[in-house]
Amino acid sequence: MKRVAEYIHGYTYGSPDVAKSQVSQRELEDLKVSVGFTDEDQRYLLLAGEVLADQTRRIVEHWRSGIIAGIPNLARHSRSPEGDALPDYLAKSNLRFEQWILDTCLRPYDQEWLNYQQEIALRHTSQKKNKVDGVQSTPFVPLRDIIAFVAVINETIRPYLSAKGHSAEDVDKMHRAWCKSLQLQLALWARPYATSGQTPNEW
Amino acid sequence: MKRVAEYIHGYTYGSPDVAKSQVSQRELEDLKVSVGFTDEDQRYLLLAGEVLADQTRRIVEHWRSGIIAGIPNLARHSRSPEGDALPDYLAKSNLRFEQWILDTCLRPYDQEWLNYQQEIALRHTSQKKNKVDGVQSTPFVPLRDIIAFVAVINETIRPYLSAKGHSAEDVDKMHRAWCKSLQLQLALWARPYATSGQTPNEW
Ligand code: HEM
Ligand code: HEM
Repeated sequence: MKRVAEYIHGYTYGSPDVAKSQVSQRELEDLKVSVGFTDEDQRYLLLAGEVLADQTRRIVEHWRSGIIAGIPNLARHSRSPEGDALPDYLAKSNLRFEQWILDTCLRPYDQEWLNYQQEIALRHTSQKKNKVDGVQSTPFVPLRDIIAFVAVINETIRPYLSAKGHSAEDVDKMHRAWCKSLQLQLALWARPYATSGQTPNEW
Repeated sequence: MKRVAEYIHGYTYGSPDVAKSQVSQRELEDLKVSVGFTDEDQRYLLLAGEVLADQTRRIVEHWRSGIIAGIPNLARHSRSPEGDALPDYLAKSNLRFEQWILDTCLRPYDQEWLNYQQEIALRHTSQKKNKVDGVQSTPFVPLRDIIAFVAVINETIRPYLSAKGHSAEDVDKMHRAWCKSLQLQLALWARPYATSGQTPNEW
């Protein structure tokens, strides 16, 4: 599997430290049907992965330094409770965010992927945020902000998808596949937030 | 305000029967910032409203009869617990769904709109599903299916946005504004699902 760096701090994809997802394969298959995810989408995600592979750094900079950093209500989640920058936390989670772009495009959506989806979700909740980097920051990212930010990610990924000279039709198809994958992942990430006793009131 | 029919059963937008939203105006403003919703988006939603106004019936047919009806895991939510069709339930909720397209495009996103967002959300949960039409059907629509289906709605709305001969650029801008609004609404709808004690385990 392609990686954005040889060592990615806290990136535990496929490792035995990652708990089994509480979502079943059957629920995943149903979700794929509900988002309308097809074999064509899968192929166009692979193409998107090729197109984005050498742009992940710029993309994550764009999202995190270019957009989130300018929105105090969002920026605080990568800062200390007093509002100070935590450059090491930002750098480490940025690198995992970069790798996620590749994983979204290039990984098979199998049991290991499903397990890591749950891990990503939990790392935004009070169960796991801040833990893997050993920092003090906000206790969780509210679910509503994750849902909202998907709109930004979907809008801003487009120019990166068209940066390698593919036809408008191919860019459209890559973009459509990307948006479906994001919505599928969002559905999976919502689970701990919506399951009682797990992360109450982190909407 | 433009309506899809003179009488829309169960459509209580703006009426005193609709409870005040538990989301504050401040939280709404923050969410608009997080999805990147601009004045330009607002203008293009108005244009989308003009474009879609005489197509709402075909669009909702497309979504509900053309897509959801073919996915048993989704279709069951408009059927009886035994799986029988409930044509009256379908027709009535279809009409409200049509009106929602206009509301999405043409209404100001003010307190009344916020209140009705909560009402729409609750009507998908065990708190309010089936009530306004007095039917027996599944107790709730899982949050994950709503999140997933947004991808389908966003993909399939496009041809309807371009059906009136607007330039590709205008269609793009209408579509972008639409997708942001949907993600904003989805964030609002997630609240009862993610708030403890309200609708436990309806993920
Ligand atoms: C489209 C929405 C989002 C996506 C796709 C996304 C994706 C990710 C990914 C892939 C990671 C790294 C997971 C890992 O450890 O391997 C991550 C971590 C993180 N994200 Fe997000 N995220 C989203 C929304 C947000 C928002 C809105 C915020 C806050 C403004 C946020 C703040 C964080 C933080 C602080 C971490 C580090 C968590 C930790 O302590 O381990 N994310 N995100
Ligand atoms: C993009 C996602 C969705 C949107 C925008 C949406 C929108 C709406 C709207 C506007 C209404 C009428 C609200 C009112 O009473 O005024 C409604 C009702 C309803 N929706 Fe959805 N919906 C979505 C997803 C789903 C899914 C995935 C299902 C099930 C497969 C579903 C099933 C229903 C049902 C059964 C009702 C009637 C609820 C009642 O008993 O009052 N919806 N929806």
